[in-house]
Amino acid sequence: MSDYTKVDSFLEANMDKSLAELAKLVAQPSISAQKIGLPECAALVADMLRARGFDAQIYPTAGSPVVVAERKGKSDKTLLFYNHYDVQPPEPLELWDTPPFEPQIRNGKMYGRGVSDDKGHLAARLFALDALLAEGELPCNVKFIVEGEEETASVNLSKFIHENTDLLKADACIWEFGGVDHTETPMQYLGLRGIQYVELTVDLLSSDVHSGTGGSIFPNAAWRLVWALNTLKGEDERILIPGFYDNVKPPSARDRQLMSELADSSEEYKSRYGVPYFIKGLTGGNELKIEEVFSPTCTICGLTSGYQGPGSKTVLPARASAKVDFRLVPDQNPKDILAKLRAHLDAHGFTDVKITDLGGDAPARTDPDDKFVQLVCGTAEEIYEKPMSLVPLVGGSGPNHPFVHVLGLPVATAGLGYPDTKAHAPNENIRIDLYVKHARHMARVVREFGSR
Amino acid sequence: MSDYTKVDSFLEANMDKSLAELAKLVAQPSISAQKIGLPECAALVADMLRARGFDAQIYPTAGSPVVVAERKGKSDKTLLFYNHYDVQPPEPLELWDTPPFEPQIRNGKMYGRGVSDDKGHLAARLFALDALLAEGELPCNVKFIVEGEEETASVNLSKFIHENTDLLKADACIWEFGGVDHTETPMQYLGLRGIQYVELTVDLLSSDVHSGTGGSIFPNAAWRLVWALNTLKGEDERILIPGFYDNVKPPSARDRQLMSELADSSEEYKSRYGVPYFIKGLTGGNELKIEEVFSPTCTICGLTSGYQGPGSKTVLPARASAKVDFRLVPDQNPKDILAKLRAHLDAHGFTDVKITDLGGDAPARTDPDDKFVQLVCGTAEEIYEKPMSLVPLVGGSGPNHPFVHVLGLPVATAGLGYPDTKAHAPNENIRIDLYVKHARHMARVVREFGSR
Repeated sequence: MSDYTKVDSFLEANMDKSLAELAKLVAQPSISAQKIGLPECAALVADMLRARGFDAQIYPTAGSPVVVAERKGKSDKTLLFYNHYDVQPPEPLELWDTPPFEPQIRNGKMYGRGVSDDKGHLAARLFALDALLAEGELPCNVKFIVEGEEETASVNLSKFIHENTDLLKADACIWEFGGVDHTETPMQYLGLRGIQYVELTVDLLSSDVHSGTGGSIFPNAAWRLVWALNTLKGEDERILIPGFYDNVKPPSARDRQLMSELADSSEEYKSRYGVPYFIKGLTGGNELKIEEVFSPTCTICGLTSGYQGPGSKTVLPARASAKVDFRLVPDQNPKDILAKLRAHLDAHGFTDVKITDLGGDAPARTDPDDKFVQLVCGTAEEIYEKPMSLVPLVGGSGPNHPFVHVLGLPVATAGLGYPDTKAHAPNENIRIDLYVKHARHMARVVREFGSR
Repeated sequence: MSDYTKVDSFLEANMDKSLAELAKLVAQPSISAQKIGLPECAALVADMLRARGFDAQIYPTAGSPVVVAERKGKSDKTLLFYNHYDVQPPEPLELWDTPPFEPQIRNGKMYGRGVSDDKGHLAARLFALDALLAEGELPCNVKFIVEGEEETASVNLSKFIHENTDLLKADACIWEFGGVDHTETPMQYLGLRGIQYVELTVDLLSSDVHSGTGGSIFPNAAWRLVWALNTLKGEDERILIPGFYDNVKPPSARDRQLMSELADSSEEYKSRYGVPYFIKGLTGGNELKIEEVFSPTCTICGLTSGYQGPGSKTVLPARASAKVDFRLVPDQNPKDILAKLRAHLDAHGFTDVKITDLGGDAPARTDPDDKFVQLVCGTAEEIYEKPMSLVPLVGGSGPNHPFVHVLGLPVATAGLGYPDTKAHAPNENIRIDLYVKHARHMARVVREFGSR
């Protein structure tokens, strides 16, 4: 490996400037679920890239615009960074210690919605490039694809990638996220579960009715929804949709081995989230770790119907809905699951339950022995002072399927996350020490990738 | 009957003044479920009574204050009016054509939250007394009890009545509501179902969690709630709590006869509320009418959990809750039902489902052959030009149990309601013609009651 003294000195000296740029990015709300601030944030991202000499273009889609940028480098190899500029909704607002879109630094952390997921990653990577550019040209071609719908299941990204394979042509890809676990070990996440997100809606009456009038004789949308949901999963957590498990590939012996080398998070989960017990009779160990990622899910993410304010209101609700996500494992497919869900509800007489498809991604994985993966792991070791843990599959989802299967890229992860980063929750934050470490790591990946 | 020419002329001449007083009362929000404006509204009601020479006192309770007022009359008989000044929450606000607390008259109707339930009744009754007072003394003693928690199950009223039996001593009672059905027939409602309103809450984690992390291994509050609710009632509408139906007294032959004389509302329900079908295989006729009131219910009035905004948010909710009301028929008892609900949930392993008691009332009925009931019916016939329909029991609930069983009063109903009055819904309204008819009716009831 080459000498990184100058790079590291640059990053040390310019940290405040980079954090100020990140704060500006976080202060721009960009909530894809609520369609707030998306074109504004895309423009800001393009400006940040252009400031580094990138040719950055903003491409419209049926949803949020996609930013694609390229800057040539010494080698003819191309590294593609995938990031997203959209964030999760900030609600519940009352649980934030400081306002979500007014980023604040305190106790070595920066707080704000999106500071970790995913704006901090983007800012740290640009910071790494600043350090390399301070010494001359980039060591290799670098491309960025920064989308604005990752938090709403990247509904338009796969089509965009299919239609722009030349534009996005590359040799390897760094994924949007990564980080350390609760033992400060950096993680190499080699696969993502898929997802199918749906809203289930029952709409039976033209208005809410006094429950004294209709309670005994009118159909109740909330009851219909409860009964329909109840047919989807049993109290034993078994998903009851016929054929749901058909394409589930059980973890291989190698997967089980890799999983066994990972830290056990069970005690951490109990203290961090107040988890009172694990489901399916699990208590910890490798079985818990394997179940966490290699089993598909059916999660109720939200329920809404009728009166939800304080005290009592005696109404029979006209309408009820549930948000439900299915996490999918290789080789399940979101469209197949959607069709099976419809067939299941119909078979149980729930033709009155409407399904709205809020997006899906297929699961995908990268080979742990790929040499780009080895490069990312090798460069991390010096910085984090321990080897990266290889994680064959993680519980979260993302649009890695078209990167792996359409662009044909090895996809490696690296990032600034840590267990208390509270992505998707109030008081989302990053540790500034990990922000700088991620920039140091990325500078090494880009230079080493160009030189090999 | 005496001559009511002067009374009716007075009411015709002073209608606008009375409606202006009603509008002022409606413009004062008084939402018991949300604890908004209650003492202010009680003070306004007391002022309205004092303006008619009543000795009006405001009594504190553990909840909203109760207004009790008395004015002596010629006879030593006492008629007690029961009304309430609280209203239902106005939500969903976007469905109101004009703001709920800015009453408006258009097309012969007045619109506003509480204009029908129950402020219009109170104002029309005071208007009737104005007409009698214009001719001298009141024909009998008149008392009012106007509470502020009827819409939240009158949680403190029964205790207040038990502790103030002398203050409330009377010979007969006019109930807070009444009105005509869709054939313009005035209704005499002789009984009310009871109610037990509960909130069921599941609280499992310390915060919402990213569903990619917890979905496969953490317990989900929304799922626990769905499964718990599902054990309460089957898709066939049978309530599954052991012993729930134990004390249900089936309707007598006379009840069935009285019910058969009532109009069939089934087509009206379909057009007014968009009811697509009736549950339990009912299609109309006397069986539907009887089922509507003589069967107890378990109604989900509201569901809330996790993310409920637009689009998708991938969270595993820490908390979920449901509002549920049980309508009870003679001789069910709310405390007994509450205990059976707890035992049922525990027996099904749902010790994690917390029950919050949001109030209850026992069911109660008045004898259709009572002579005060006959007086109220007799005086109505001249005004509505048809005999009152005797309804042995209605679907709604109220605190009539202590009036019937503690104060020992016959309770008769009369009012200005009509089928499209939208009590508890957006665009609540009254017909002004029925407002005046109710005032004319009440003037007759008071004078005839004093003279017999």
